Parts: sequence; C-alpha cells; structure tokens
Amino acid sequence: MKFCSVCGHPVEFRVPAGDNRPRFVCTKCLTVHYENPRIIAGCVVEWQGKILLCKRAIEPRQGFWTFPAGFMENGEAVQDAAAREADEEALAKVEVGSMLSVVNVLRAHQVHITFRATLLEGQFGVGEESLESVLYEESEIPWDDIAFLSVEFALRRYLDDRRAGVERLHFRDIDWEEGKVTLRDR
Amino acid sequence: MKFCSVCGHPVEFRVPAGDNRPRFVCTKCLTVHYENPRIIAGCVVEWQGKILLCKRAIEPRQGFWTFPAGFMENGEAVQDAAAREADEEALAKVEVGSMLSVVNVLRAHQVHITFRATLLEGQFGVGEESLESVLYEESEIPWDDIAFLSVEFALRRYLDDRRAGVERLHFRDIDWEEGKVTLRDR
Repeated sequence: MKFCSVCGHPVEFRVPAGDNRPRFVCTKCLTVHYENPRIIAGCVVEWQGKILLCKRAIEPRQGFWTFPAGFMENGEAVQDAAAREADEEALAKVEVGSMLSVVNVLRAHQVHITFRATLLEGQFGVGEESLESVLYEESEIPWDDIAFLSVEFALRRYLDDRRAGVERLHFRDIDWEEGKVTLRDR
Repeated sequence: MKFCSVCGHPVEFRVPAGDNRPRFVCTKCLTVHYENPRIIAGCVVEWQGKILLCKRAIEPRQGFWTFPAGFMENGEAVQDAAAREADEEALAKVEVGSMLSVVNVLRAHQVHITFRATLLEGQFGVGEESLESVLYEESEIPWDDIAFLSVEFALRRYLDDRRAGVERLHFRDIDWEEGKVTLRDR
C-alpha cells in the first residue's frame, strides 16, 4: 500500500495515536488503513466413501491437488463460501456438515476454515480453476502432490476421524521463518 | 474506496475479466482490490463460576456490556487474538479453551469467532477500551444491556452448555434488511 484509498495521497507506515502497531496512515486525511487476516473456506467432500479432489489450474501450486477452497467473500457465511467453492472448482453441489479444522497460516495472514461435506447426487465436474476433478479412494490420494500443508492436515484429520467414527474439530498453526516451516497443534 | 492504494489513481467498481462479482479496479494500473470479511475474535472468560464482562468505553455501543473481543490482527492465531483482547480490554491473562461459536454477521462483513476461556489466577482490571470490568454470576448478567447480538448468542450458548456439562460449537448467521434483523441457526 502506497496511497490512501480514500483521498489518493501517499500513506506512511507508523503507529497511530492510541494504537500499538504500525498501520498505513494517510499523510493528508489521516485515515488509518487496517489490514486483517482473510478467511479461506473449504470442504472435504465425500461421496460413497471417496474424497473429491481437484487439480489446480492456477497458481499458486498449479498442477497440485486440493479439496475445494478459496477466499470467503463479503456478504456470505463461511459455510456458504465452502459450498460455493465446491460448486466453482468442481461443479459440485454439496451439503456442508461439521467444522473439521481451523488452521492459522500466520505469515500468509490467512485462516483456513474447513468443513466436512457430502456430495449431493454424486454429480461433479471440472470448474474453471481446475484441470481435473477426481473422487479418490483413501488409498489412492496423491499425498506427494497435495497443494498446501493446511489441505494435507485437514485431509489426514478427516480420514483419522472417519476411521474412529468421530467428528472432531482440529487446530493447527503454520508458520515459517527463513524457509523453515514450523507447525503447532492446539 | 475511491483511489488505488498501489498507484493513487481513481478506481471504478466493476466486474473484472474472469470474475463474477464487482470489485474496485484501478482505472490506471488495473489492480483489483479484493475486500473480504474480517474476523472478530473473542472469549467468554470464566473464574470460579463467574463470567467476565466489560462495559465498552468506545463506540459502537459505548456503555454496553460484552466479553472481550476485537479484530484479529495479521500474524496472530485466532486463539491468540482472543487472549490478546482479554488482556487489552480487561487486563486479564486467560487460558483459551474450546471453540464456542462462529457467527456470520453478513452485512457487517464479519465473522465473530468466540472461545471458552479461564481466567488465570483471578486477576483482571479495566483496559483502555473499557469503562468497567466485572465478574458476574449468571443471575446478575445485564442481559438488557449486552452490546451485540453475537455476544448475547455466545453467552447464552455458553451458559446452556455449562448447565448441560458439554462444550459444543454453535453457529448462527445474523443479517438485517430495512432495519429488520434475521437470525439463522445452523
């Protein structure tokens, strides 16, 4: 951020009066521009024991596999955002169930919230942001080609819980420094 | 938003190529400025059966009561944001427990995520954004003067669950149109 979105004048990065963190503050109109984490909403979609995964057609991680997930939009509920992503990425109508995982991705300023979901009527396809969509048996999941650490975390916990016959909520923090990833479960 | 934060030129509100929603797009450098919901992180803090509430010193809802809650910051986990708010608003060191509620506040473009928490050593005070902090017995909670619908929702569910000896996760959507509030539980 270099310019104020309210008045168009340059911003500076400083601690505003009464605050304790640096923010982008307009040098002219003094508007403080707050920046906050964004929510990535997604769902692990199951159909007859199989898991719906999409091969990403876009960066980041083009060509790698993920369950449907993406940025939550203003005006929607996080569950509806997860269902919308299933529709957009895999042309899949789903029923969203319990919350599966919340992953704080600290350096990316994101919170990844993932739900369990069921595919309705077994119908799906390939959305514009996907190269392929596949219903995988657990034994067929391409673990070496999963797009994101948070996706692998949610998928593994989903499968663990399914084996145990429970639906738990799982938490993890993902951070990295100088190329080294650190994980913290809660 | 009137000006591009990257180059300072005017933005227009239109659907970018390949998108299906209107966004603020720079008329000069064509940067698309996405806007997404923000997370309000909070916690219901208990100490010896009592609940810690703060009387708000600031707008919105100055003079009304809430548990500690506020905007999650970049670089922190949602649980740590809830604990930070307890420290800032009530000078309270807390241990954050299970997730209590997720409330989609649709028109406000916010997701209110609230945890259960325990006050450490019973110590608390009055933070800069509070007029008062009080440990209330359940029977003393000032229900008529609670600051926000999402706060009342989380508090009531917390107390219901405590009576039932369970720790469930509760979901609600809050929306409003022409002054009329609509609630949807999930």
